[in-house]
Amino acid sequence: MSVRDLMTKLDMQQAGKEMHALVTQLYPICRSITGAGVRETLGILQQLIPLSVREVATGTPVFDWTVPREWNIRDAYIKNSRGEKIVDFTHCNLHVVSYSTPFHARMRLDELKAHLFTLPENPAWIPYRTSYYKENWGFCLSHNQLSQLKDDDYEVCIDSSLEPGHLSYGEYYLKGDTEQEILISCHICHPSLCNDNLSGISLATQLAQRLTAAQRRYSYRFLFIPGTIGSITWLALNQVAAAQIKHGLVVVCVGDAGKFTYKKSRRGDAEVDRAAAHILRHSGTEYVINDFSPYGYDERQYCSPGFNLSVGSLSRSPHGTFPQYHTSADNLEFIRPHSLGESLAMYLSVLAVLEENRSYLSQNPYCEPQLGKRGLYKAIGGSADSMASEMAMLWVCNLSDGNHSLLDIAESSGLPFHIIQTAAGLLVANKLLREVSDTRVA
Amino acid sequence: MSVRDLMTKLDMQQAGKEMHALVTQLYPICRSITGAGVRETLGILQQLIPLSVREVATGTPVFDWTVPREWNIRDAYIKNSRGEKIVDFTHCNLHVVSYSTPFHARMRLDELKAHLFTLPENPAWIPYRTSYYKENWGFCLSHNQLSQLKDDDYEVCIDSSLEPGHLSYGEYYLKGDTEQEILISCHICHPSLCNDNLSGISLATQLAQRLTAAQRRYSYRFLFIPGTIGSITWLALNQVAAAQIKHGLVVVCVGDAGKFTYKKSRRGDAEVDRAAAHILRHSGTEYVINDFSPYGYDERQYCSPGFNLSVGSLSRSPHGTFPQYHTSADNLEFIRPHSLGESLAMYLSVLAVLEENRSYLSQNPYCEPQLGKRGLYKAIGGSADSMASEMAMLWVCNLSDGNHSLLDIAESSGLPFHIIQTAAGLLVANKLLREVSDTRVA
Amino acid sequence: MSVRDLMTKLDMQQAGKEMHALVTQLYPICRSITGAGVRETLGILQQLIPLSVREVATGTPVFDWTVPREWNIRDAYIKNSRGEKIVDFTHCNLHVVSYSTPFHARMRLDELKAHLFTLPENPAWIPYRTSYYKENWGFCLSHNQLSQLKDDDYEVCIDSSLEPGHLSYGEYYLKGDTEQEILISCHICHPSLCNDNLSGISLATQLAQRLTAAQRRYSYRFLFIPGTIGSITWLALNQVAAAQIKHGLVVVCVGDAGKFTYKKSRRGDAEVDRAAAHILRHSGTEYVINDFSPYGYDERQYCSPGFNLSVGSLSRSPHGTFPQYHTSADNLEFIRPHSLGESLAMYLSVLAVLEENRSYLSQNPYCEPQLGKRGLYKAIGGSADSMASEMAMLWVCNLSDGNHSLLDIAESSGLPFHIIQTAAGLLVANKLLREVSDTRVA
Repeated sequence: MSVRDLMTKLDMQQAGKEMHALVTQLYPICRSITGAGVRETLGILQQLIPLSVREVATGTPVFDWTVPREWNIRDAYIKNSRGEKIVDFTHCNLHVVSYSTPFHARMRLDELKAHLFTLPENPAWIPYRTSYYKENWGFCLSHNQLSQLKDDDYEVCIDSSLEPGHLSYGEYYLKGDTEQEILISCHICHPSLCNDNLSGISLATQLAQRLTAAQRRYSYRFLFIPGTIGSITWLALNQVAAAQIKHGLVVVCVGDAGKFTYKKSRRGDAEVDRAAAHILRHSGTEYVINDFSPYGYDERQYCSPGFNLSVGSLSRSPHGTFPQYHTSADNLEFIRPHSLGESLAMYLSVLAVLEENRSYLSQNPYCEPQLGKRGLYKAIGGSADSMASEMAMLWVCNLSDGNHSLLDIAESSGLPFHIIQTAAGLLVANKLLREVSDTRVA
Repeated sequence: MSVRDLMTKLDMQQAGKEMHALVTQLYPICRSITGAGVRETLGILQQLIPLSVREVATGTPVFDWTVPREWNIRDAYIKNSRGEKIVDFTHCNLHVVSYSTPFHARMRLDELKAHLFTLPENPAWIPYRTSYYKENWGFCLSHNQLSQLKDDDYEVCIDSSLEPGHLSYGEYYLKGDTEQEILISCHICHPSLCNDNLSGISLATQLAQRLTAAQRRYSYRFLFIPGTIGSITWLALNQVAAAQIKHGLVVVCVGDAGKFTYKKSRRGDAEVDRAAAHILRHSGTEYVINDFSPYGYDERQYCSPGFNLSVGSLSRSPHGTFPQYHTSADNLEFIRPHSLGESLAMYLSVLAVLEENRSYLSQNPYCEPQLGKRGLYKAIGGSADSMASEMAMLWVCNLSDGNHSLLDIAESSGLPFHIIQTAAGLLVANKLLREVSDTRVA
Repeated sequence: MSVRDLMTKLDMQQAGKEMHALVTQLYPICRSITGAGVRETLGILQQLIPLSVREVATGTPVFDWTVPREWNIRDAYIKNSRGEKIVDFTHCNLHVVSYSTPFHARMRLDELKAHLFTLPENPAWIPYRTSYYKENWGFCLSHNQLSQLKDDDYEVCIDSSLEPGHLSYGEYYLKGDTEQEILISCHICHPSLCNDNLSGISLATQLAQRLTAAQRRYSYRFLFIPGTIGSITWLALNQVAAAQIKHGLVVVCVGDAGKFTYKKSRRGDAEVDRAAAHILRHSGTEYVINDFSPYGYDERQYCSPGFNLSVGSLSRSPHGTFPQYHTSADNLEFIRPHSLGESLAMYLSVLAVLEENRSYLSQNPYCEPQLGKRGLYKAIGGSADSMASEMAMLWVCNLSDGNHSLLDIAESSGLPFHIIQTAAGLLVANKLLREVSDTRVA
């Protein structure tokens, strides 16, 4: 089964339901860039795909950075003077600023307020905050709740640990016909947040499952890593492997109802950039294509100038552009099975282009080949499909001069890639086309 | 007389009348890709221009194709049971599907219908159909007529022959100052159809007549060939000559009232593409410029990847975009003398640019030359024409650095080519400019 | 004090007043391309900047031109038969066609009229006319006045001289850290005309004064020259110096209330072209950017193909586009202190970009550097300024691969140059960036 078959045979509705179910399972876990929550998450994924879990020791130098201490949290609360828990980590793991240092004290509201974070503009929502690289502690709560807090004597407790340990990430390498790789990367460091990025984890898992069963020209590498420090760590420890990455996509925010957004690689005209643009253009849906910027997710690291990998990012609503972003409202209702399924189809479509994009040489470059004598021209002509197919054959014959890939031809002709690909297949079968060796395609 | 003079001195109205008269003369002949109708057509053209008629034997291999058997037709009809000819080839040669095999039989309407072609959307018109490469027979008639046919016993007769013979085409080579050629190609395989392509035959004939009398930097090659198989045959048998073709135009559909359409060569930025775009831009008429596509007329063959010649096509309404296309409504009323004359002027304008486009080197590259001391600045300045002329001289002086042709300068300045060309002439006469040798222009 | 500091600390209102005052002082002087008026003007400028006055003898060959005879005028008038001066040079120096030959005669109105120039479309204004290279004489007057002239016996007197002498121009060279130069050129040949070009003289003088006090990476050369013949003369006599000019601006028409207009150098993508476009884009004002054309002011000569210098021109309303152009209405009211001050600020902004535009190499090209551990990430984040600064640092790190200058990075990021420059400074101070040697920038 080809990657294109994976796409055409996809039951988007069923896939969307499965993806939403996985998000639901992972939702309660308190993840951060290190710690038990990450391991528990990877453990669940290992039940679905043969993921290798890597552990990198605290203190390991990774380029300009150092693997941080491992953070774990057992409990956290704020009690009022009557001993009532008014903020309770066990109810919602967003309540604690991620990487909060252990803390236990009593204090008045004024003193406490410097450690409380709310969203006045969305007073019912709890924000998500972190303090990975600066020791601190804090609580996040709804602005409504903060408004009701009275001056009182509060007991504040954060039962966490921040100690030497490991950074954990998951990696799944799927060998294809060639050593050249397609990288699928998602971040796993966010606690109870669904679009960012349980949706991405879920989509990457589905891709991994389905691609395992497919014929693959490319090898695939799936990374389930904590944001920023995870990709930096992987790149630092895998510089040889990184050189094999020919295309890549960072999977984020793929579950909301927003239109698709593709963020180009730093190169701007990489094959993955052109494949994604082509698929979106022919998708019949609204979409946006943005130039690369050095802000966002792990594409920042993959596209740092020393690597400059051809890695883009295909999302729905991009980070920071929807109000639910990094709040408790990025929840199980915010993402939708339908959107998740549609996003999976879009990823498979882009991968199908990358898998099938090749360059050919016409074996009959002087004038057109006589398609009719090979039965490649429909007698009656008629249907729009057969017209498109004949046009596609003429385009492929005309542009297969060694300088145009099938994707180039699809772009020049305005026809969808799969029509061009099918035409090329027919022409190869009729010995009118010969594939250019891969080394020339690169 | 220069090609530019041909254009400025053209009596468009008179030329249009002559062109329409030639179309009228050729209209009744039943042409196909081979046969007597083509020879008769070429014979008439030989009375106007010294055309060589070439005959290529059936079975001659031409690249992926083979020269087909020769088709000739004497008569064809459908008679009803009362012996009345209800469809009669002698009334309209479109009634017979071109390349219909000899056939004579009686049959009921049901059986006959599989061989009848009509245009339900234009019920009064007769369609034009061919079956060159698949043996078949058929009749074309108006849908109105078909609707009135009753179940009856019909006599069907096609008195044709399909036998070894020759493919005929006309060629006229006009030597210029250089061996480099401009190709003017038109197809001669359509029966009683005016815009497609008696208009093209007529325009090419006028060009040939007029260019014979002009000074020519380029050599010209006029091809009057059956579509597709004709250009393939010519290219297959003239590969050395093809290498001399520097620019080319396929002349089609130049008689209707539609706006001008230029279809670029496969290169997309060939000098002929830029010359045509320049002339159209300054023409004051509406026009469309389309990118190359491997569908259309003989530019498909000239622009196949093995040749990739700089051949575009300048039309009015392109093939397939007007309802009269390939129907009996593409008749003597559909084309207009005015349109034909205007098209001829446009062709001459484009050729004048190609003839006169050269690169020069300023002999005074450091600062402006003092035009005034040479009488090149009008004392009073005043008129728009002299302003344009002075601006043109400044542009030519400024950009004649060996990297810009006159057409480049016309494009940069926004001035019409002929103003730039005139300015260059004045500057050459004043020794301020020297032509770059042709080898550098190429 | 850096050039950027000159700009940020500029008191635009005060500067505008000073500039207007200088224009007012120079306004009454009758300048032409040679003669006493030019010397008097340069003498006034020498009180403000250490200008060298150069004198080039009549007859000196300068490329295709020859330094003309020197023209001086003492008086000129037309008297009617009652001895009344009806046109009087001492009232307005525009009354005499510049370079009018000595003349004294009596004549009737009909004969006189051939030498009278008016502006019928603006009947109250006196036009400005010259006849430098063709011996002639004439008077300019308002059309209203001409309409009232009766047939009479007129005494016509032009007390001028046109004799061997010198062409005078001013030059001020300001050494910077490098030999590479920025050219600031303005023309000084116009009599009582304010926007064209006393405004330019005044702005160039202010730039010269202020840049003298600043740190300068580039050397600066200020030219105060008669139009056309002045730049040709300078270029002919200074071909070695011209080779040092890396960027240049021709200062003209900078005092009117129109929007800014930048005319690109002939190269079209020179650094000065990109710097000016960048500054205008971020200026919050309306502006126009025009391609180079070989018509205008002295950029025509600097951008002649033999030199092809990177010299553009930053104006407000360009020459010929405002009705007051080359008329007595281009007076002290037409230009405004506010506009002059704003123009000065715009010039300083462009120069600040050129001064600070450098290329750097990231010292940490593999993944992002950890900005936080160096205190380069604000703890709270918060303000728009600090956000922009952090984004700027990420952009500079990401694109400092040796192929992108700071201006390139500003353009890619959409951030203003000075934010990018400040970010680069912080990164250099933190050893995350190292300047690419100047030779590589060029």
